[in-house]
Amino acid sequence: MQPVLNFAALTASLKAKGRRWRVAVVCGTDRATLEALMRGTAEGFIEPWLFIPENFNLKNLPGEVTANPFFHIIPADSDEAAARAAVAMARRGEADLLMKGLIHTDTLLRAVLNKEEGILPRGRLLTHIAAAELPGYPRLLFFSDAAVIPYPTHEQRVQQVAYMIETCHAFGIEEPRIALIHCAETASEKFPHTMGYAEIADRAARGEWGRAIVSGPLDFRTSCDAAALATKGISSPIAGSADGLILPDIEAGNLLYKVLPLFAGAKMAGMLKGPQCPVVLSSRADDAETKYRSLCVGIMNKVGK
Amino acid sequence: MQPVLNFAALTASLKAKGRRWRVAVVCGTDRATLEALMRGTAEGFIEPWLFIPENFNLKNLPGEVTANPFFHIIPADSDEAAARAAVAMARRGEADLLMKGLIHTDTLLRAVLNKEEGILPRGRLLTHIAAAELPGYPRLLFFSDAAVIPYPTHEQRVQQVAYMIETCHAFGIEEPRIALIHCAETASEKFPHTMGYAEIADRAARGEWGRAIVSGPLDFRTSCDAAALATKGISSPIAGSADGLILPDIEAGNLLYKVLPLFAGAKMAGMLKGPQCPVVLSSRADDAETKYRSLCVGIMNKVGK
Repeated sequence: MQPVLNFAALTASLKAKGRRWRVAVVCGTDRATLEALMRGTAEGFIEPWLFIPENFNLKNLPGEVTANPFFHIIPADSDEAAARAAVAMARRGEADLLMKGLIHTDTLLRAVLNKEEGILPRGRLLTHIAAAELPGYPRLLFFSDAAVIPYPTHEQRVQQVAYMIETCHAFGIEEPRIALIHCAETASEKFPHTMGYAEIADRAARGEWGRAIVSGPLDFRTSCDAAALATKGISSPIAGSADGLILPDIEAGNLLYKVLPLFAGAKMAGMLKGPQCPVVLSSRADDAETKYRSLCVGIMNKVGK
Repeated sequence: MQPVLNFAALTASLKAKGRRWRVAVVCGTDRATLEALMRGTAEGFIEPWLFIPENFNLKNLPGEVTANPFFHIIPADSDEAAARAAVAMARRGEADLLMKGLIHTDTLLRAVLNKEEGILPRGRLLTHIAAAELPGYPRLLFFSDAAVIPYPTHEQRVQQVAYMIETCHAFGIEEPRIALIHCAETASEKFPHTMGYAEIADRAARGEWGRAIVSGPLDFRTSCDAAALATKGISSPIAGSADGLILPDIEAGNLLYKVLPLFAGAKMAGMLKGPQCPVVLSSRADDAETKYRSLCVGIMNKVGK
């Protein structure tokens, strides 16, 4: 498989698979979500299952949706019921992706995390992976965690690394380069999270998560700027070409997630990983394009399994 | 005074003052530092005092420096002695800015922080302020702390805010807008640093630091993207037009400092604030242009006093 290095290649790769993945959409009634779904459906790689609460008048769905044989519409009593039904579909292994529409994030996450009927296996971490396509950077840049885990413990960070490698592999990156980010290039007790970085790098080097290069502490520039490395004569196994970054905390992760589209012209996507299938939880303010990219990233993650 | 909204206006403003400020330069023997100093000297607003250790052959200084009547050369026994002598000049109030040349940061900082002979008054915080000029953002964006304080305590954050307001005032921004950054827009005990944000905003509103609008928790987008605010119908006293950001921790601050020049085409500058005069501590890898901008930012800070 050719590595998928940008969002156009991602769409091309999904279209080339010649099959459709089922997307369970909770309250998918807003225009942006529907547009994203219509696009993926027309491109032939998804089959949307819309779980729609009864307070929404189905006549307000666009004709392209209701007349489309690949769209399935499942009425539900309420937002909560729609979330439970979509999650149940994923739990039965019948959905490849869960996607949020016009529903409160909390309501959806309660169904996902429900101990009896949810889809997060015991002991699995729920974490966020973002993907950015940046003008001037020759590959997608994945990073965790912009949205869920405030200050990852060592064990949580280990799982974030494992997920990150799994995601990169799903994107056809045979030996992903993952940087454990820190403001400096040496571990120190002043920054307790850095004290476990070497152990994680060692475990990766021993092949615990398949082929991958994990290194840190590294700063953002050393991780993503091959030219600066060359100028400074620094050597790093990441070589300024990181595929993935593990950020120290959610403050750094969230900042990166917001700076890149605003000032760096980045195209963004994001998903939650950990549950039985990825969950796309884009915000109401995201446009159809962002929702579409997140949908594609989520499905690719499933494809790679 | 017209507000200084970009680096070109900063240079113009300094030139227009019609006077020179003294810059004490520790081991200013590297090409990039000398170029920055020659430019400021030619533009008429600085007078460099170079403290140079005896292991450096003065014949290696460019003729434009040795022949220039505004350059003063003070030999010293060693790097440490050069640092002590430059700091002593600042301590006597005879230097307006301290600038690092080809010397280890630790060596310079030891002299700055020395309890008997240094220049950091007891109880004053030493913190880093960066300034970024961003294509597409209509003002300079200042932020703290990318380099010094790992996890600011509440009292340290209060001082960071005070310094930030003072810096903005020095740049002619009459009522600076300062955002206290967090990944979310509500304070929570999961993020203890956010619990003091409201108190800081209140103190600012009561005029403790002169005219200023301080607000938080706010995320980066709400702080810097007026268009997104308008679209979402969110209201914020910062109105998407922050002059300054107080980042939650050094991991976020350092990340911003490195992302902006690499992917957002930002021109950067930085200085340390807290000592009797600002200290420019740019890295050896910074080019002459960056050192020049930092020099200007440092002097402007002093001008505004």
